[in-house]
Amino acid sequence: MSTLVFQLSVILFAARFGGILFKKMKFPSVLGELIAGIILGPSLLGSIPIPFLFENGLFPQVEGALIPVEPELYAISTIGSIVLLFLAGLETDLKLLVQFSIAGVMVGFGGVIFSFLIGALTTAWWLHIPFSDPRVLLMGVISTATSVGITIRVLSERKKVGSPEGITILAGAVVDDILGIIFLSVVLGIATLSRKAGQQSNQNQLFEVGMLIFRAVGVWLGFTAIGLLLSQKIGSFLKYFKNIGTISALALGLALLLSGIFEKAGLAMIIGAYVMGMTLSGTDLAKVIENALHPVQEFFVPVFFVVMGMLVNIKEVISPTVLTFGFIFTIGAVIAKVIGCGIPALGLKFNFLGALRIGAGMVPRGEVALIVAGIGLSSGFLDQQLFGSAILMTLLTTIVAPPILNVILTDKKGSLKELEKGELVETDFDMTSPYLVELLSERIVQSFVSEGYYVNTIEDEVKIYHFRRERSTITLFVEQKKLRFENDTTDTIFVKNIVYENLVRLNDMINQVKDLVKPAELKQELIEGEISTDFDVKKVLSTDCISLDLQSNTKNEVIKEMIDILFKNGKISDPEAALEAVMERENSFSTGMQNGIALPHGKSDSVERLVVSVGIHRKGIDFQSIDGKSSQIFICAVAPKKISGPHIRFIAHVGALLNTREKVDELLRCSTKEEVYSFFTET
Amino acid sequence: MSTLVFQLSVILFAARFGGILFKKMKFPSVLGELIAGIILGPSLLGSIPIPFLFENGLFPQVEGALIPVEPELYAISTIGSIVLLFLAGLETDLKLLVQFSIAGVMVGFGGVIFSFLIGALTTAWWLHIPFSDPRVLLMGVISTATSVGITIRVLSERKKVGSPEGITILAGAVVDDILGIIFLSVVLGIATLSRKAGQQSNQNQLFEVGMLIFRAVGVWLGFTAIGLLLSQKIGSFLKYFKNIGTISALALGLALLLSGIFEKAGLAMIIGAYVMGMTLSGTDLAKVIENALHPVQEFFVPVFFVVMGMLVNIKEVISPTVLTFGFIFTIGAVIAKVIGCGIPALGLKFNFLGALRIGAGMVPRGEVALIVAGIGLSSGFLDQQLFGSAILMTLLTTIVAPPILNVILTDKKGSLKELEKGELVETDFDMTSPYLVELLSERIVQSFVSEGYYVNTIEDEVKIYHFRRERSTITLFVEQKKLRFENDTTDTIFVKNIVYENLVRLNDMINQVKDLVKPAELKQELIEGEISTDFDVKKVLSTDCISLDLQSNTKNEVIKEMIDILFKNGKISDPEAALEAVMERENSFSTGMQNGIALPHGKSDSVERLVVSVGIHRKGIDFQSIDGKSSQIFICAVAPKKISGPHIRFIAHVGALLNTREKVDELLRCSTKEEVYSFFTET
Repeated sequence: MSTLVFQLSVILFAARFGGILFKKMKFPSVLGELIAGIILGPSLLGSIPIPFLFENGLFPQVEGALIPVEPELYAISTIGSIVLLFLAGLETDLKLLVQFSIAGVMVGFGGVIFSFLIGALTTAWWLHIPFSDPRVLLMGVISTATSVGITIRVLSERKKVGSPEGITILAGAVVDDILGIIFLSVVLGIATLSRKAGQQSNQNQLFEVGMLIFRAVGVWLGFTAIGLLLSQKIGSFLKYFKNIGTISALALGLALLLSGIFEKAGLAMIIGAYVMGMTLSGTDLAKVIENALHPVQEFFVPVFFVVMGMLVNIKEVISPTVLTFGFIFTIGAVIAKVIGCGIPALGLKFNFLGALRIGAGMVPRGEVALIVAGIGLSSGFLDQQLFGSAILMTLLTTIVAPPILNVILTDKKGSLKELEKGELVETDFDMTSPYLVELLSERIVQSFVSEGYYVNTIEDEVKIYHFRRERSTITLFVEQKKLRFENDTTDTIFVKNIVYENLVRLNDMINQVKDLVKPAELKQELIEGEISTDFDVKKVLSTDCISLDLQSNTKNEVIKEMIDILFKNGKISDPEAALEAVMERENSFSTGMQNGIALPHGKSDSVERLVVSVGIHRKGIDFQSIDGKSSQIFICAVAPKKISGPHIRFIAHVGALLNTREKVDELLRCSTKEEVYSFFTET
Repeated sequence: MSTLVFQLSVILFAARFGGILFKKMKFPSVLGELIAGIILGPSLLGSIPIPFLFENGLFPQVEGALIPVEPELYAISTIGSIVLLFLAGLETDLKLLVQFSIAGVMVGFGGVIFSFLIGALTTAWWLHIPFSDPRVLLMGVISTATSVGITIRVLSERKKVGSPEGITILAGAVVDDILGIIFLSVVLGIATLSRKAGQQSNQNQLFEVGMLIFRAVGVWLGFTAIGLLLSQKIGSFLKYFKNIGTISALALGLALLLSGIFEKAGLAMIIGAYVMGMTLSGTDLAKVIENALHPVQEFFVPVFFVVMGMLVNIKEVISPTVLTFGFIFTIGAVIAKVIGCGIPALGLKFNFLGALRIGAGMVPRGEVALIVAGIGLSSGFLDQQLFGSAILMTLLTTIVAPPILNVILTDKKGSLKELEKGELVETDFDMTSPYLVELLSERIVQSFVSEGYYVNTIEDEVKIYHFRRERSTITLFVEQKKLRFENDTTDTIFVKNIVYENLVRLNDMINQVKDLVKPAELKQELIEGEISTDFDVKKVLSTDCISLDLQSNTKNEVIKEMIDILFKNGKISDPEAALEAVMERENSFSTGMQNGIALPHGKSDSVERLVVSVGIHRKGIDFQSIDGKSSQIFICAVAPKKISGPHIRFIAHVGALLNTREKVDELLRCSTKEEVYSFFTET
């Protein structure tokens, strides 16, 4: 067990460092995690002996095993892939997608078909094996699924996410995932059959393959249909538990259950996880579960990608044969998407440039390709050469896409005139506070949903939401202190209205909280109660810091004078900073209490511990006290910001000490600093 | 792999159901999870064949294996125990604890020593084996660690958490954990040695055991010291990554790393996890990491408890021998805490009743006992009989404690007079909004920390915080709509001040947000922009719902009249509810725009889809419009709450339609309902 624990620890660190490094280089962090895995894996650093601890290395080479990592580690990484696909499914609201993006469906469909065919044919040609060979079919599936994260980032830098091309790519990628999952179902069915049958007679094969395809699609379609039908029921069942932790744990439990069922049915676990996600995507729990499972994902999913990298045997991959095939396979994968997505796009009234952009945007492969390659390797259908080629293709397609996109993303229009109903404009809302952005953005997304919009969430440096309904498509970029919309000119008024309505509601909520808070009322009771006996005023007050005759005439001047006393006696290093802190607190709510006392205070790093000055102003100064009378006694306290120590405790103590008029009069009768000192220290 | 996935799914469900059931019966959910595990485990339901799927059952019996569950499942449950102890360590600020609770240290110490001795001696006597036998020592350690969750619940129901006894129990339990961990270190060291040496000569044994104890405590002490010394450095290193996800993933990585190191050093992994937690407990990251890892804990930790239950072979446990020893062991465990904690309590000026209460409160064992028992079983030191007895003891001590406590928690004082400085009182703050409670409570806890208080967090039905500093102890119960403090009368003023200061700060923050929101300014721009062409007004407006001559004279009357039109034409079922919804929205911010139009609207379930009425009031009514002029055209929209559909889109559409004075005049010139209808539907 200690090996697993060390491995997980190293993987968590490597994944983060790899991810951050690649993010800095503007690549998806997945690539960094994958490469960290390759470097740490058994074929490179992993098998280097660590004396006394791991004689065969931390990730030792396992001879002859299909999966060169320990089963416990592989199990955790598999759960990672289930969590990943469950969350992907949660974001896919199928009904709305089909309703709102025929273009996306067509482009996704074209891309998947071409990618599958070219990927499979390339493999068949290179290995001289028949098309029906499981290796051929799996390599075809690996080539299907697009991962558009990096495309969206490039588009977003050029402010083109909301362009017709960008919108079509976003929808296409979702379709892509679904179709990839169906293809995987079919291919796994065929592969399992071919393994069972061994070298069977050829005669009934076509029929059997047909049946298999029918069955695999049937299982998928069956569960998807059941899921969509029961989704509200399942949602109500989960909601019965109220607690978000329980709801998300049970939702994950359901995803695991369906994963198991799909695996038992000869399909892949991730298909079950995805179907369960899709089932819940239509319920209002989708966002809740997504948020609750986010930290679980943060732990499991990077483990998955690092382990995928570890499965690569770099010594076998870096051979002329594998590299040659890897490059051919990559070129095929690029061409397949450009043509497969481009042709439907041309038919949908995009011009040549637009079709090219859509095709190029769909080129990067990612998570799903890795998962399918891993399934292929672990089930023994793929060998290291093919697995390595698939990993190489995933890496290269992601690296190659951004520069191509940057070249073709000119200002020229990519779509024919009739497709567009207006100019794309930006509508910005400056918020100046990240807190407000957070408060508002979630509500706004919810509003779009309740206006009947389909929401596509893309997490990147900034969070991007893509809303779509009939012919209206709006993109929202949630930036640090800004909400930025990209929308058609004809939607600008709608966008403004939706932000406005949410501001109004937020304003309402704030007013309600304000009504409840009522600090003014509480202030009345602040000094009612017994005095605490264990505060030692000697530690914070010295006779030097007592003034019997304050010179000031206004509130601001008094506070400045009290701070100056502290400064002159060497108690504070930076009087301006201290004054600012005390004034800031004072301006929120006056510290003038009843009976003529005022307790200005603040936290500032210009002191190293709590320091106090006491001043008496016989005539009295208006300090906006509770009873409206002028204040004659001022106790000014400055405490350090960072170090823990009494601050409010002191204020409570002196407040309680002076809670009757008699006590205040007693203090006012003092004629020397020593008497004042004794008053505070000997009561 | 599909087996693991099924197992995890079933475990997630069983854990939740067991946990909820036991919580309803007022027992800790841990017990429910444990018993769910026993029932599901190989010795009961687990080995029942499930035809076609699991021929040997979902959790099959494994002959001869130390751990009767699959290694992958056991690995995940082990990670659960690491996460659990890491989080426990995170809540233990050792420096402050020692500083503020000598009583707790003494009570904890006494309880641990007595429990260890009685637990070990009972085992040695029963099995006729020497005291130095690893089985004896491990059974001693299992008996040490208290789990006071259920005690706190009983105390809190009787409002005694803040009593001197309650406070001492809370501190004692923390000391208990730390001492239990040290004892475990020592015992594991000895056990490993005894296994290595086999039947060694007796002569140097005493010396070697001494050395071992020295080394084990040394390793523990060394890493704890290094941790405390470097804690701020480690904190700064983690903070460098800014992102909370990264910080908590790396913190967990560090916990795993130290777990591995401790295991390699012959100690237990959980000790390393605990030490890493304690290291970070002094930094300001502690709360952040705790919050971020909460969902990870929600997933992993129940798996751990269920798996612990599965390790129980019920057939071996339900034998007269095991049950007899189990009961003897339990009685010993109860007596040990009552005496071991009671005697130091008596010495600390508690009276007999108080000492009894403290002793009884420390009786329940829990998580740590289970973990140590699991380590004993999996390392082969404990057999099923001893393991079963340990589980039985954990269950029984937890079940037995509440009724005993309920009997002895009378109104009589448990401490001698001189210990108390004042009466215990409640200070309540009604909040009427859970949102405000959440906003405030976190800030208040932070304030106590910065006042130098030691914080002990207890999660239960309600969240309980226990603050302690010198002789001041304050308990905060965060209830649904209330903050309830239990404190000494002499601390009431301080508590009020701390709440007040935080209300002032919150009030400030709310004002800042309000300044930023400025909905009034945004409203000016709401109708500037191009009109959207694709809203089909025909679907929501009918000529019946148009009035050319509104009769009302005030704003409220107009809105009521507009709703009545909808009601009379059968568009809404509940006019009162609809009116209320529209008025609520109207009262937040008037919907009077410029150019004489007003757009009152609201969401109410008295309609099934968006319905609209249009009214004209030639003379005009004051609607607090933007330009201050009276409003002549009223468009009233009511949309359903739940169903997704246009609502703001409609308002934006008509706002844009009427965005010039010319357009408004054109509408005002209409003399029939049909003309008005055409105006809206044909533009």
